[in-house]
Amino acid sequence: MPSFRLAICQLRVQADKEENLARAREMILEAADNGARIVLLPEMFNCPYEDDCFAPYAETYPDGPSFKMLASTAAAAGVYLFGGSLPERDGERLFNACFVYGPDGKLLARHRKVHLFDVTLDTLTFRESATFAAGDTPTLVPTPLGKVGVAICYDIRFPELARLMVLQGAEIFVVPAAFNTVTGPAHWELLLRARAVDNQVFVAGAAPARNRHRRYETYGHSAVVDPWGSVIARAGAEEMILYAELDLDRVRDVRQKLPLLMNRRPDIYG
Amino acid sequence: MPSFRLAICQLRVQADKEENLARAREMILEAADNGARIVLLPEMFNCPYEDDCFAPYAETYPDGPSFKMLASTAAAAGVYLFGGSLPERDGERLFNACFVYGPDGKLLARHRKVHLFDVTLDTLTFRESATFAAGDTPTLVPTPLGKVGVAICYDIRFPELARLMVLQGAEIFVVPAAFNTVTGPAHWELLLRARAVDNQVFVAGAAPARNRHRRYETYGHSAVVDPWGSVIARAGAEEMILYAELDLDRVRDVRQKLPLLMNRRPDIYG
Repeated sequence: MPSFRLAICQLRVQADKEENLARAREMILEAADNGARIVLLPEMFNCPYEDDCFAPYAETYPDGPSFKMLASTAAAAGVYLFGGSLPERDGERLFNACFVYGPDGKLLARHRKVHLFDVTLDTLTFRESATFAAGDTPTLVPTPLGKVGVAICYDIRFPELARLMVLQGAEIFVVPAAFNTVTGPAHWELLLRARAVDNQVFVAGAAPARNRHRRYETYGHSAVVDPWGSVIARAGAEEMILYAELDLDRVRDVRQKLPLLMNRRPDIYG
Repeated sequence: MPSFRLAICQLRVQADKEENLARAREMILEAADNGARIVLLPEMFNCPYEDDCFAPYAETYPDGPSFKMLASTAAAAGVYLFGGSLPERDGERLFNACFVYGPDGKLLARHRKVHLFDVTLDTLTFRESATFAAGDTPTLVPTPLGKVGVAICYDIRFPELARLMVLQGAEIFVVPAAFNTVTGPAHWELLLRARAVDNQVFVAGAAPARNRHRRYETYGHSAVVDPWGSVIARAGAEEMILYAELDLDRVRDVRQKLPLLMNRRPDIYG
């Protein structure tokens, strides 16, 4: 299989939703112009990652302006578009959800964040479960370029979910995320690399650019890791489009050399 | 709980078994003299890590000289001794096994490597299953210093085993291992750190020192990682004793800040 280009739009999310949508569209189209066939946005690309923003920024599928932008831009760009995440309203409930569109602009999948971010760090307390309901299924997206599993931010901390996705055939994990300046330097790249090495997949982590004006300071540093665990593309903290070439023969090659998935011992995992 | 000292004897394994036993004993006693209360040896501490050595070096518990050395040295040193691994003969079968002794010299536990190392790297092919039978249970060792889970080398590549151990109460993973110069630089420290971060435990990886005269060139670089994923002690490739201070309050602290084990979703892991 020939390799293809994946792009991560490391958008600098602002308070102005229309501005976020316009900028996201612009970056997606630029990525496509530069040959990207899969394009990723970060977690909460249309909304500051702050408790009190989620409800006011939330939208109902399919009529919200963010969904319309994603669908029309995927079609205009002709790419597989993993729309980071946004606050999705479904009746009374809100979800932190990733909507995935094909190059024809049709919805392919929706992942609702399964593991909600409820933490009490020294300098940061966050409680997603006060606002969001949790999804309850892994999400796999079959594309002609490969089978893609989706994990939103905190989801990637749970090796069980990654394993479920790879046992269902994932060759690429995409991880829209918004790690912060506490957990980012300590864990972000480590987790992307660990999931890649354990599951022998490409892992693409899409973060928003640093915005020092917001209460929750995101870490940036989007990255793409190959199935051997090598970082093949890495952003800084600023707004940019990050590109990587993915050759899925590399997945097969690594799995042949180090047959981890065959050497598992499900008989003892219970 | 006060902190305590753990030591890793990064022994340079040679062809001469008696020499290996004598040197291991010497290093364990030195570690105890320097205040260590838990002492680790590397994988195959009494035997070069080579296919054709395993059977001739194998011993039957409890009468083999390696078992006698481990028991008597644990007692003489007054330490919890995780005896790396050695080729254990049990009737017709061989196991790659870790024997664990208490400060009174009594056997506390035995871990038989669960995941056998069958790989086909470009420059290295290895097939442990041609020689060894596989163990079939996780191994947890309760001690007054904390509950310790044991994983031998390739075992650490499987997040399922690590999770099983932590769900059974492990606060420390000890990993006698012999990564090589291909997988070592790429994956050794990454895997130790990933298991530590995912499971919020201390992880101590015990490797033999580099010995360029052997066919299988081991990587060295024993390391100890804290529950936040920080490397708190790291060896080079040469023979040495590596020390680290372990404070299990750190396990509780990290688990409180980032309650990963509570935020798991066993309802969807199936």
